Amino acid sequence: MVNKDVPGRTNERGYLRIATEEAFAPASLLDLYLKHARDPGLDDPGFKSLWGFYAASPSPRARFIIEGLKDLGEKRLRDMDATGIAHQVIALTAPGVQVFEPALATRLAIDANDMLADAVKAHPTRYTGMVAIAPQDPANAVKEMERGIRKLGFKAVILNGHTRGEYHDDPKFWSLFEAAEALNVPIYLHPNAPPKQMIQPFLEAGLDGAVYGFGVDTGLHMLRIICAGVFDRFPKLQFIIGHAGEALPYWLYRLDYMHAATLKSNRYPFMKQLSHPISHYLRNNIYITNSGVAWQPAIQFCQSVIGPERVMYAMDYPYQYVPEEVRFCDEMTIPDEHKKMFFQTNAERVFKLNTATL
Amino acid sequence: MVNKDVPGRTNERGYLRIATEEAFAPASLLDLYLKHARDPGLDDPGFKSLWGFYAASPSPRARFIIEGLKDLGEKRLRDMDATGIAHQVIALTAPGVQVFEPALATRLAIDANDMLADAVKAHPTRYTGMVAIAPQDPANAVKEMERGIRKLGFKAVILNGHTRGEYHDDPKFWSLFEAAEALNVPIYLHPNAPPKQMIQPFLEAGLDGAVYGFGVDTGLHMLRIICAGVFDRFPKLQFIIGHAGEALPYWLYRLDYMHAATLKSNRYPFMKQLSHPISHYLRNNIYITNSGVAWQPAIQFCQSVIGPERVMYAMDYPYQYVPEEVRFCDEMTIPDEHKKMFFQTNAERVFKLNTATL
Repeated sequence: MVNKDVPGRTNERGYLRIATEEAFAPASLLDLYLKHARDPGLDDPGFKSLWGFYAASPSPRARFIIEGLKDLGEKRLRDMDATGIAHQVIALTAPGVQVFEPALATRLAIDANDMLADAVKAHPTRYTGMVAIAPQDPANAVKEMERGIRKLGFKAVILNGHTRGEYHDDPKFWSLFEAAEALNVPIYLHPNAPPKQMIQPFLEAGLDGAVYGFGVDTGLHMLRIICAGVFDRFPKLQFIIGHAGEALPYWLYRLDYMHAATLKSNRYPFMKQLSHPISHYLRNNIYITNSGVAWQPAIQFCQSVIGPERVMYAMDYPYQYVPEEVRFCDEMTIPDEHKKMFFQTNAERVFKLNTATL
Repeated sequence: MVNKDVPGRTNERGYLRIATEEAFAPASLLDLYLKHARDPGLDDPGFKSLWGFYAASPSPRARFIIEGLKDLGEKRLRDMDATGIAHQVIALTAPGVQVFEPALATRLAIDANDMLADAVKAHPTRYTGMVAIAPQDPANAVKEMERGIRKLGFKAVILNGHTRGEYHDDPKFWSLFEAAEALNVPIYLHPNAPPKQMIQPFLEAGLDGAVYGFGVDTGLHMLRIICAGVFDRFPKLQFIIGHAGEALPYWLYRLDYMHAATLKSNRYPFMKQLSHPISHYLRNNIYITNSGVAWQPAIQFCQSVIGPERVMYAMDYPYQYVPEEVRFCDEMTIPDEHKKMFFQTNAERVFKLNTATL
């Protein structure tokens, strides 16, 4: 059942629908993905599983996604109109440029950002951009973040899981966090396939992708960043994680209890004492979107334990373009003010959107 | 605040507290664990991390756990009395005998089961046993299951994560499932440290244990068993998973959506079409305990999406002996009948306990 609301202005429900984890990719990058996935010298089974499939599969799902990723014009706007999405916050799809060697990755990030900036310029009331970076060259990544935010008008940074097997809790990446805090923009930590050091038991069961592997790897990545003390060092820094918080809100009690117990017993001499329990960072440094989870129990759970001011709507276009799911979210039996926060006002605040122009 | 209710009979709250994921270990096995963990030839970083710590650490946490595991007598009963636990359902601690070579493992399982059976015989109103097995020798594991259930009076089977790097969705282990279904007893799938093919990104951040790695590995293991079609082949088979369902209830919507989408697009040619969506198996073949999660939001979430008849209380003694947590659960603002199901009647049904003698 397609939602017939006209986008562009507050509809009769009293809120705009702003979708906050939406993806695009230049056609030339998708070609590179396929070439990379087929490189016999590449030792990255997660990338091969992910893009070896999407870039080449004749299945309707893969074809729809490829067409949707490439389009920043009429098709995307039609799909938004058909589902009542007023505005998309768009990022380069996973794994972005994070799989390539540093110089190429840095150049590809610039190209992708220029393309997205053009689309935002053409449709300012419909699109907002996140800046893609190549963390494998941190100094240039910081420069591109600054260009993306200050020159191109983007409102967030996209980071897609590990960069060539490395997680971003490593201090060599902390300049990215320092820059994001200084620029006052959030970092969206988007899933990628788990790295080769972890993926095998997922892959051999077909569970490495969005069905499970994405979520646990992104949860692990976010926890590594918390446990490394990144938010103690950069207390104003904000992250965003999708998929109902990658289950971290659900694990909240156990994370707090076991992290404290582990520290107290000195099980890992390298483990840092943090300024707060893990739940503090979930509630003060992390926003959550419901991408892929159009399900009231999980959304409401997040609102209840993390706070309704930290939970935002996302469709995950074009990966999960399911018109019925907009209705599921519209029809949630939650307070009207929480629903408006979820669909509209949290995103306006987090991405500093100019509501008047939407 | 210690709960002062006298155990042994229904207390003034109207329910008995039956704890369903409680652990023990023979002292001789703990000695073998330490020896095994220190074996330079052992390539199992998860076991080394887990038992290299617990078996040797001078920390109060590790010492309390070691003492608690070894005791099946007065200390355990005192701790149960002090927290108002009427009855424990007890299993050999993780990873049981699953790390040893088959002949030794089979013998150690028999010894552990005999020891537990003696304790149950000495305290029949306070203890119920689960039978430990050595899946690395499936034929003898089935024999020991039959002995444990029929001769020793145990009421469930304990399985601790992977067996030497192998998950139990492999068809070579399905005779265990056939036997459990025939014996009409549930299998408790308890966490273990992730296997070496997966653990590295958890381990290097100190997240391989109960804080996070246990949960995602057990969730993966349960999903592998579901996706392999085990419950289509053995539809009456029942599993139990702890820690509020290892987050699988929270992932329910995404599991259903993405498993169906993955199958439909034929991404993995080996992936099986199942008779039902994944949520069906969560609701019909899996019981959940709240071990480690004395937290109303997660417990209530499980009751709401899986069903109150499938959610049971567990303390996780001696790993999480926290008297206050009994009070947290007692004071949950849920319907009285759901609380009685949670603390008492579900466990009575699942483990076929004779209430009259408790």
